[in-house]
Amino acid sequence: MLVEGKSYRTIEASSDLTRVTIIDQTALPFKFELIDLKSLEDVIQAIKIMQVRGAPLIGVTSAFGIALAMNNDSSDQSLLDAAFSLKESRPTAVNLAWAVNKMLEHLKPYDTNDRAKIAWLYANELAEDDIKTNIDIGRAGLPLLKQIKSSPLNILTHCNAGWLATIDNGTALSPIYQAFEEGIDIHVWVDETRPRNQGMSLTAWELTQAKIPHTIISDNTGGLLMQQNKVDCVIVGADRISIDGQVCNKIGTYLKALAAKAHNIPFYVAAPLSTIDNSFIGEKKSFEIECRHPDELLRIKGMNNDGTVSEVKIGMSTAYNPAFDLTPAEYITKIICEKGSYNPESIGTLL
Amino acid sequence: MLVEGKSYRTIEASSDLTRVTIIDQTALPFKFELIDLKSLEDVIQAIKIMQVRGAPLIGVTSAFGIALAMNNDSSDQSLLDAAFSLKESRPTAVNLAWAVNKMLEHLKPYDTNDRAKIAWLYANELAEDDIKTNIDIGRAGLPLLKQIKSSPLNILTHCNAGWLATIDNGTALSPIYQAFEEGIDIHVWVDETRPRNQGMSLTAWELTQAKIPHTIISDNTGGLLMQQNKVDCVIVGADRISIDGQVCNKIGTYLKALAAKAHNIPFYVAAPLSTIDNSFIGEKKSFEIECRHPDELLRIKGMNNDGTVSEVKIGMSTAYNPAFDLTPAEYITKIICEKGSYNPESIGTLL
Repeated sequence: MLVEGKSYRTIEASSDLTRVTIIDQTALPFKFELIDLKSLEDVIQAIKIMQVRGAPLIGVTSAFGIALAMNNDSSDQSLLDAAFSLKESRPTAVNLAWAVNKMLEHLKPYDTNDRAKIAWLYANELAEDDIKTNIDIGRAGLPLLKQIKSSPLNILTHCNAGWLATIDNGTALSPIYQAFEEGIDIHVWVDETRPRNQGMSLTAWELTQAKIPHTIISDNTGGLLMQQNKVDCVIVGADRISIDGQVCNKIGTYLKALAAKAHNIPFYVAAPLSTIDNSFIGEKKSFEIECRHPDELLRIKGMNNDGTVSEVKIGMSTAYNPAFDLTPAEYITKIICEKGSYNPESIGTLL
Repeated sequence: MLVEGKSYRTIEASSDLTRVTIIDQTALPFKFELIDLKSLEDVIQAIKIMQVRGAPLIGVTSAFGIALAMNNDSSDQSLLDAAFSLKESRPTAVNLAWAVNKMLEHLKPYDTNDRAKIAWLYANELAEDDIKTNIDIGRAGLPLLKQIKSSPLNILTHCNAGWLATIDNGTALSPIYQAFEEGIDIHVWVDETRPRNQGMSLTAWELTQAKIPHTIISDNTGGLLMQQNKVDCVIVGADRISIDGQVCNKIGTYLKALAAKAHNIPFYVAAPLSTIDNSFIGEKKSFEIECRHPDELLRIKGMNNDGTVSEVKIGMSTAYNPAFDLTPAEYITKIICEKGSYNPESIGTLL
């Protein structure tokens, strides 16, 4: 996508295959900053502190993490160690484990002398695949938007499932980008998405770059907007989807799904098939909800009047900060993936 | 209630009847600061910038505003002008208009020479009434808490309907304070309540002062907690209640009510009968939703590492900031008022 007129991806390998360049997403929306990751440790740190985030992006980033590890030591042990540490870095997004496993399977048969080069090739292939997948998700979602006859078409989204969450194009925002390109009169309600404010900081920034009309709202506001008939549909991404169509996504997604159901508003989840977790049956809730540091809630970064950015403390008590919730299939109108849009209950049959 | 061991009310008249002292609620939780309001204009400003807030408290504060105006000019015109400007200062909380109308009715028959003194007496009476009312709300709510057999009893609350929202004791928090005094093992989930963070800044501060166990959560978290059976009931306050039991309260209340209903969790609204708006029938939605400045969402105040407090900008796009939403009666288990707890649909019959 374009940033101030210039084309970027969220992650790109250097031509000499010694580093990857990422957009530091913790610096947005205040500053657009590229940083280089030069080792497996750099990659793990960037994933942990969320300089890269979004299920598809952390998948591909971890693939490049393996490539960086192979530059250094391409032994079987090094490969397994890298895979293990990467999987530990964020527990919820299944795409991370998916990408790491793809790399493992692909690299194992190769001689250690060839592994580094092959790893870079394959990580780049996963990145290219992600871009194609997201364009296909956009194509699959576009007809669902077109069938709503409102002008402007008011879409609510939670968190960031835009191009910043992927290599390019995004998942939930991909149909929105395609609709905007086709000249559809569109307006996006952007949930700020506490505590990390990915909506306010990332989605709003993306949509500003793309010149798509949008308005930031507090996460509390969606219910009122639905009461006032100001939301035509909801589209969100996903971090993990069970084979029976239950969706683990950013905390607060479930509250919006409940409200959409109460108001008979379509609720769409857009995600690549790699988000489906074969071993995860929703009703057993056999997934780990990542709990992050309370300071994410109690401290916040912002821009001072002089343009510098600093962090202030906003809360003084203890806090609890789980990062995801689970939306049962009955609240989801369709899951949009690269193969089309499906009833959530049948999503497992696509594997 | 006690602040660092010393007893306070949120507003107190000076003995010479020339000013009222309030707690500056915009300074909390960083600093406990008392300020004096010496004129009607001071009162209107304090209500507008929310140095005082909470439906019952702004009602009584506006009564003192009339008293201050009478000190200056006790003519009929001055009385009517003061009433008009006070009602304009915040549109949603019906208690404000209720208190102003009570003052108007009470003062009109008196000779202008007596009005100032009578105004102070009557405003003080309204303050005392508020305290008694809130104790009665606590008594009415307590049996509802006691009938839940969980230990600890996990209560979720949104915004601040504690003693800071009233003269003392609070509305939604009044049964919680009484339960705690009786030794019931209680824990409160405190919604931070974006955009103004009254939960994080005021409710958490109040509960800390009272030594009641509590945890701050993002407004997005309640749904997950209900999924995990970690919420036994929800109690919130109200800014306006229709005669058919629909509740206008802080934005986001409705999303929690939807979730409570889906999980079969009791959802209680605690408010004095003065919150009921005779002219407001919920289904007509004939109430004004106050929209406040977008900067309340896009800027935030916090404490720097050196202990100073400053405001930072956290969002860069346009924002929309409605302050309230409407929760239909069907989502409310009981409305708790000074007369007892009632099915919401029948609340209008109490008037």
